[in-house]
Amino acid sequence: MRILVIGGVAGGMSAAARARRLDEHAEIIVFEKGKYVSFANCGLPYHVGGEIEQDSYLLLHTPDSLKAELDLDVRTEHEVISIDRDAQSVLVATPEGTETFEYDALVLSPGADAIVPPIEGMDLPEVTHLRTVDQARSLAVRAADARRAVVMGAGFIGLETAEALRHRGLEVTVVELAPQVLPPLAPEMSSLVEKELRAHGVDVRTGVAAVGVVKDPAHEGVTVNLDDGGAIGADIVVVSVGVRPSSALASEAGLEVDGRGAIVVDDQQRTTDPHIWAAGDAIAVRHGVTGQVGPVPLAGPANRQGRRAADSIMGRIDKAQPVLGTAIVRVFGETAAMTGASPRMLDMAGIDYFVVHTHPANHAGYYPGSQVLHLMGVFSPEGKLLGAQAVGPDGADKRIDVLATALRAGMDADDIAELELAYAPPFGSAKDPVNMLGFLAQNVVNGTTRTWSAKDLEWARDSALILDVRSEREYAMGHLPEALNLPHTHIREYIEGVKQIAAGRPVRVLCASGVRSYYAHRVLAQHGLDSATLDGGMFTLVESVPGLELVHGTAQPANA
Amino acid sequence: MRILVIGGVAGGMSAAARARRLDEHAEIIVFEKGKYVSFANCGLPYHVGGEIEQDSYLLLHTPDSLKAELDLDVRTEHEVISIDRDAQSVLVATPEGTETFEYDALVLSPGADAIVPPIEGMDLPEVTHLRTVDQARSLAVRAADARRAVVMGAGFIGLETAEALRHRGLEVTVVELAPQVLPPLAPEMSSLVEKELRAHGVDVRTGVAAVGVVKDPAHEGVTVNLDDGGAIGADIVVVSVGVRPSSALASEAGLEVDGRGAIVVDDQQRTTDPHIWAAGDAIAVRHGVTGQVGPVPLAGPANRQGRRAADSIMGRIDKAQPVLGTAIVRVFGETAAMTGASPRMLDMAGIDYFVVHTHPANHAGYYPGSQVLHLMGVFSPEGKLLGAQAVGPDGADKRIDVLATALRAGMDADDIAELELAYAPPFGSAKDPVNMLGFLAQNVVNGTTRTWSAKDLEWARDSALILDVRSEREYAMGHLPEALNLPHTHIREYIEGVKQIAAGRPVRVLCASGVRSYYAHRVLAQHGLDSATLDGGMFTLVESVPGLELVHGTAQPANA
Repeated sequence: MRILVIGGVAGGMSAAARARRLDEHAEIIVFEKGKYVSFANCGLPYHVGGEIEQDSYLLLHTPDSLKAELDLDVRTEHEVISIDRDAQSVLVATPEGTETFEYDALVLSPGADAIVPPIEGMDLPEVTHLRTVDQARSLAVRAADARRAVVMGAGFIGLETAEALRHRGLEVTVVELAPQVLPPLAPEMSSLVEKELRAHGVDVRTGVAAVGVVKDPAHEGVTVNLDDGGAIGADIVVVSVGVRPSSALASEAGLEVDGRGAIVVDDQQRTTDPHIWAAGDAIAVRHGVTGQVGPVPLAGPANRQGRRAADSIMGRIDKAQPVLGTAIVRVFGETAAMTGASPRMLDMAGIDYFVVHTHPANHAGYYPGSQVLHLMGVFSPEGKLLGAQAVGPDGADKRIDVLATALRAGMDADDIAELELAYAPPFGSAKDPVNMLGFLAQNVVNGTTRTWSAKDLEWARDSALILDVRSEREYAMGHLPEALNLPHTHIREYIEGVKQIAAGRPVRVLCASGVRSYYAHRVLAQHGLDSATLDGGMFTLVESVPGLELVHGTAQPANA
Repeated sequence: MRILVIGGVAGGMSAAARARRLDEHAEIIVFEKGKYVSFANCGLPYHVGGEIEQDSYLLLHTPDSLKAELDLDVRTEHEVISIDRDAQSVLVATPEGTETFEYDALVLSPGADAIVPPIEGMDLPEVTHLRTVDQARSLAVRAADARRAVVMGAGFIGLETAEALRHRGLEVTVVELAPQVLPPLAPEMSSLVEKELRAHGVDVRTGVAAVGVVKDPAHEGVTVNLDDGGAIGADIVVVSVGVRPSSALASEAGLEVDGRGAIVVDDQQRTTDPHIWAAGDAIAVRHGVTGQVGPVPLAGPANRQGRRAADSIMGRIDKAQPVLGTAIVRVFGETAAMTGASPRMLDMAGIDYFVVHTHPANHAGYYPGSQVLHLMGVFSPEGKLLGAQAVGPDGADKRIDVLATALRAGMDADDIAELELAYAPPFGSAKDPVNMLGFLAQNVVNGTTRTWSAKDLEWARDSALILDVRSEREYAMGHLPEALNLPHTHIREYIEGVKQIAAGRPVRVLCASGVRSYYAHRVLAQHGLDSATLDGGMFTLVESVPGLELVHGTAQPANA
């Protein structure tokens, strides 16, 4: 049996290695059009930033090591240029000319291509991408002499690149078309990351498009022109605006691809040709929450898809799980992570949900070094987990991994409240942040709590009594102009007063993070008031409403 | 409605707080026999060690703060001395005398008492426990003047205490009756922790019992006499040999307790009296894997049991989940964590299982600072997860939390292999250590791999060809005397030679961690040899066989 694999990085190399372990006697040839196989894609920005000093660390294997270890015939700088499905053969451009190879099984793992915006100047020498080892090497070298960089695109890799260049001492501007950095995150989570970027001197421009890159006649370098009239000088421009499936070879061979160009496969990674399998960034996968199908370019799924393709070739059944889109990025001192569906994805898919936010400490607050972790959960109206996001300096990865596991298991708020996680003061709390998220969602589902949020703010300002139950000191440091201050420890004492001031209006309670306002809400609700507690408290509100004006001092509002 | 709560720490305080949030109008009285309520039990060793400098950090709430925040009537130094179930009343010893209180609902959360070994000297002033804030304060003060400490008991709290006293500069000896520290861990995991203790200058004595503590007439302090004839001088002796349910009050009132003295409750936390609920260290819980019932003194479950008791009192159904025993301890630079059943527990319960060990990096090996994480999974013969343990300087907590979630969800090896966890180089690997554990178990279940382990060593030495497929350099640094060295990259080249030397014997392959020997095993098995790969490699073998003798140099064995 001869197995040909197209693409020698995550998906392709996983397929080849697994195939060899299952069948010592198969002939396995891997074609890689680039110079390197099995390199550490996700490590490229860290080489640019100098954290991974040796570029050799990025090269996990060589054709020689793969021959010795796995008896793989790995051919770099070999580009497959066509597939003849009837003949079961591929035509390959080699350094010595073209050559035809027949196959019994073919695995496509061609990856994805960087999207190049259709604007002028993309071919200037100052403009680069960060997709290959050579590009990383070159960028690392050029960064040493450059002063100013523009990163186009504030996705995961764009922000890693911005941080890397900042570590190298450059002035860095990030330009993002979307109104926020890290578009997959909810805006109020993303804004925490944006603050971290600004705190480290990165100039962040969101909601703006680059319309062209032109040589600067007066100075060295180029000018990046923006559609808001802005212009940014740069010595280096890194384009990181996304990728699209590299599926031309597949579609030209008549294999089915979807509307976004992703190769269609079944749950055994088989394409519409029974002798051809596919894995990695080029294929369409089903999202585990929304059910929507499309490309999801992530390393973890790519590896497992490759492994599964080999299993299927060898006649083993190993059914694909839908993809949850679990992803993480470190941005200076903060980490942002997510799994499952975001509110925006659910809006687009027409799926009902509610959201809860919490801001617990990463570990027991009484143990030194505890820091705030911002955690968001997305649940169905019945309490089923649909997605989660976390931002914080420590512990975000752990909580998202736990919630990704809970999501895969189909857990609901009750299950999450009951998760029995490892607790000692340096690691967590007896009620872990994940449990807290479960408690919050449970309380919403069964009506113990009722929340309000930024979208209700305008209405609340007009029509409700906004009760700020933080301490006088916290209130004085910044509060909504309409908010009446009554610390939560006095709520019972002044319950009749609250009723009088509310004068039939609903009461909308808030505090810093949502804990004390929940306590106050329970008191008010049980005294017959139309009450609700601000989900996530002022922490979440200020991130949700850019430019929210707060009043300082202790003066109470006139209309309260 | 009047609710009385006995015990003002984890379970009791959770019950009281939850009851108030659900019912603003109930009268809720909490009786605590000690001076403090709601204190940070798990933080006590860190105060002794000086990491939590202020003892006030351990006092999370006071009766005043609980009155203001939750309208709770909290009475410290109030000990309930009997329950009259017919009258629905309790008799309470107060600082002013005894007083009777009637109840509609009673919650018992009396906790557990430290076990005092039946040996002489337990009443000496040098001997203490570490269960209360006052004991922690006193120990912190005395540690400043002391030179030598003995900690009796090498459980979680014993080791935290040993570390704390070492931080204070004392000479510390730990005495443990069991043959290992941290008895709930598998021996080969526990021995990694023992090495860490020794590396930090702790004198560890396992498999030995203290038979008495006596005043030392010649010197200051005491002598701890051991049953192996040893004697250790000490200025401080901390007894931490376990706890037993504090259930005398319950059993005297005729409530059912189990053979180990734990209060029997239903899945709503209700005791055998319909007006009495119980939570925390005093109750019997069902283990989620073995089904065995008994006390499990852990803070997380205690909090949730208290919350559930309040729900039940208020007529809400919130069924208890069985307990998994998820636990964690930091020991100097290492962390040990576990969830579910250990091999020993399964042996005792008569449940079949197999074990896999792996030693991956905590995050991408090419990213700076990666460290080895030792991970063990326990699976049913069909591949269902039964338990997991981890030891390492970083990332053990995350992997055990993920596996505790997988265990709760009833996941098997296939599910764990497919978990989609957050990957970027600083946080994990595209194939996370948890996924690796799933792959390993999958391969065992479907026969792709076949493992051998320490228990087969004697047989293998006599009857098999032991093939060490590490590099020559690794082999020279220490190998089994019987092992023939053939680096895995040469296995195909010398396959006929291996067959000749094996001469009909089975081949037992090994490498450092089990990865390369798995590759070699696949080659040998597909060439018709009776082959198996050493689970966890030399890493696990040396921890499993204390005193294992290794040969240095490159000489090959004569019998190979």
